[in-house]
Amino acid sequence: MENNIQEISSVGAAPAVGASIQVFAPATVANVVCGFDVLGFAVNAPGDEVVMRVTNTPGIAISKITGDDGRLPMDPAKNTVSVSVKHYLESIGRTDLGLDIELHKKMPIGSGLGSSSASTVAGLFAAKTLLGDTSDPIHQLPFAMKGEEMACGYGHADNVAPALFGGFVLVRSYEPLDIVRLPHPKELYCAIVFPDVDVPTREARQIIRQKIQMKDAVTQWGNIAGLVSGLFMNDIDLIGRSMQDVLVEPVRSMLIPDFYKMREMAMELGAVSFGISGSGPSVFAFTRDGHTAHAITQKLQAHLTHIKIGSQGYVSPINDVGPKVI
Amino acid sequence: MENNIQEISSVGAAPAVGASIQVFAPATVANVVCGFDVLGFAVNAPGDEVVMRVTNTPGIAISKITGDDGRLPMDPAKNTVSVSVKHYLESIGRTDLGLDIELHKKMPIGSGLGSSSASTVAGLFAAKTLLGDTSDPIHQLPFAMKGEEMACGYGHADNVAPALFGGFVLVRSYEPLDIVRLPHPKELYCAIVFPDVDVPTREARQIIRQKIQMKDAVTQWGNIAGLVSGLFMNDIDLIGRSMQDVLVEPVRSMLIPDFYKMREMAMELGAVSFGISGSGPSVFAFTRDGHTAHAITQKLQAHLTHIKIGSQGYVSPINDVGPKVI
Repeated sequence: MENNIQEISSVGAAPAVGASIQVFAPATVANVVCGFDVLGFAVNAPGDEVVMRVTNTPGIAISKITGDDGRLPMDPAKNTVSVSVKHYLESIGRTDLGLDIELHKKMPIGSGLGSSSASTVAGLFAAKTLLGDTSDPIHQLPFAMKGEEMACGYGHADNVAPALFGGFVLVRSYEPLDIVRLPHPKELYCAIVFPDVDVPTREARQIIRQKIQMKDAVTQWGNIAGLVSGLFMNDIDLIGRSMQDVLVEPVRSMLIPDFYKMREMAMELGAVSFGISGSGPSVFAFTRDGHTAHAITQKLQAHLTHIKIGSQGYVSPINDVGPKVI
Repeated sequence: MENNIQEISSVGAAPAVGASIQVFAPATVANVVCGFDVLGFAVNAPGDEVVMRVTNTPGIAISKITGDDGRLPMDPAKNTVSVSVKHYLESIGRTDLGLDIELHKKMPIGSGLGSSSASTVAGLFAAKTLLGDTSDPIHQLPFAMKGEEMACGYGHADNVAPALFGGFVLVRSYEPLDIVRLPHPKELYCAIVFPDVDVPTREARQIIRQKIQMKDAVTQWGNIAGLVSGLFMNDIDLIGRSMQDVLVEPVRSMLIPDFYKMREMAMELGAVSFGISGSGPSVFAFTRDGHTAHAITQKLQAHLTHIKIGSQGYVSPINDVGPKVI
């Protein structure tokens, strides 16, 4: 059995006390309708920001968190960003380092858009960059997954992997961890709407059936094979035809206000496909251009306003960069 | 919902009475380990042959069948080849035509190698060619599936589609029928061994569990997504890692003598992957060259001889042609 993660290749000299960096990391759409627990992609907006400074006090401190309405822990032993960075520093034998973290949440928590992943990946990328570590981002995936385990009770990779790499990512296997980066049509746009209702990830997982029909599973793997083929073939029609979910969406959609109504609206406006982002409540549509994506977010947000539910809307092509210094 | 099968485009002039043609169509490996009911590919050997002659008696007759040990019906209303050809002729309004069929079985029946598909596709291609029908082979898929329904009690496409097109084929969906032709690394070889034991397709389907664990289904669709990615990326290591089946193989392997022992032997000799062909009892291995494939068939056949089971062995690259005039 092979594992496509090799040893960390290089870490540069110790960063100077006072050195600082500001990093953005992208939100991500996991599952992608027919790829439950194995597919995800990154978007340009929304995302989170981390400011990291080298201090002369060994250990990791969190000095500020904004945009979280007081929901995230300041204790570095309990915050996913600091915990992931700590695992990373331990792996390279640099626990002597002092780091101060400011986390600026620029995206909703509990939205199904990989909020904890965006923060964690921003923190890891900031630390890696400060340390001059030029190794492949794949080496940070296990540390990011530790953060996910703390945030969601389940160390999944379908948000953190696309947040780390950008683009479309397949998590083929966890044991051993096997990550495949997939291409995608460059013109693909993503419309995202977050209806402001509460769907905690743990609960959203618990309502999924543990036992399923073989015939439904066959439908699902025909579709994921079709979606992956469409991504490689630049075939947007095939991508659209393949993005159907007979197993998870019928259950999770019940937690999302007017899910099928919103799908109907999006498809009528020319969406290629429509579905739940991660465990919801955010929904997303693929489109062939930004104009259609904007029309969809506007229409769905107007509908949510009409039924007295607040929302956030985002339009973006697929992010191919992952985290970046800003 | 779109269907990627369009209308038949063109049929030529009526063929002259006495005109005849001889056609070969390839055996196929369905399922391909992690693609139960949705994936298949064709090989150069074995395969079946059909000789078809235009007669002046309207209707389809079967004048000869060889190589079947008397197991196949001569009655044109009961033979899958003639039934498929009849459906085809009806679809183009040519039931006035008289056709005589000779079927030469050059491959074992009930082997899990798409024996009925090879015969059916040979018959359809012979009729199509005699009629000067230059339309895409996809148009004959529904007629070939009618033959499969008669042969197996289930109108599947994962053997007939690769037999018709050659290469690797994904059946993304049946309703509507949606076929995706996949690329593959050109150097891939296939070693096939048919152990001469009886595993009827109907029974092999019946022992498969109808209810499965969601977590096993997730493993399976991670693997099929990995296999499809590997085919597009020419990544033979990824193809090998992805060809694992946690759902069907554990059950069906019980019907195959020393299945796990044969896998061990094949992998030790350098196979990329190993598994059951279709519903068995044939097994197959992918290799990176013909030499390794030959070594595997020899070793497995010697082992089967040792445990007093007769066998047939075949070595072939993936067939990219489908049926052909010989």
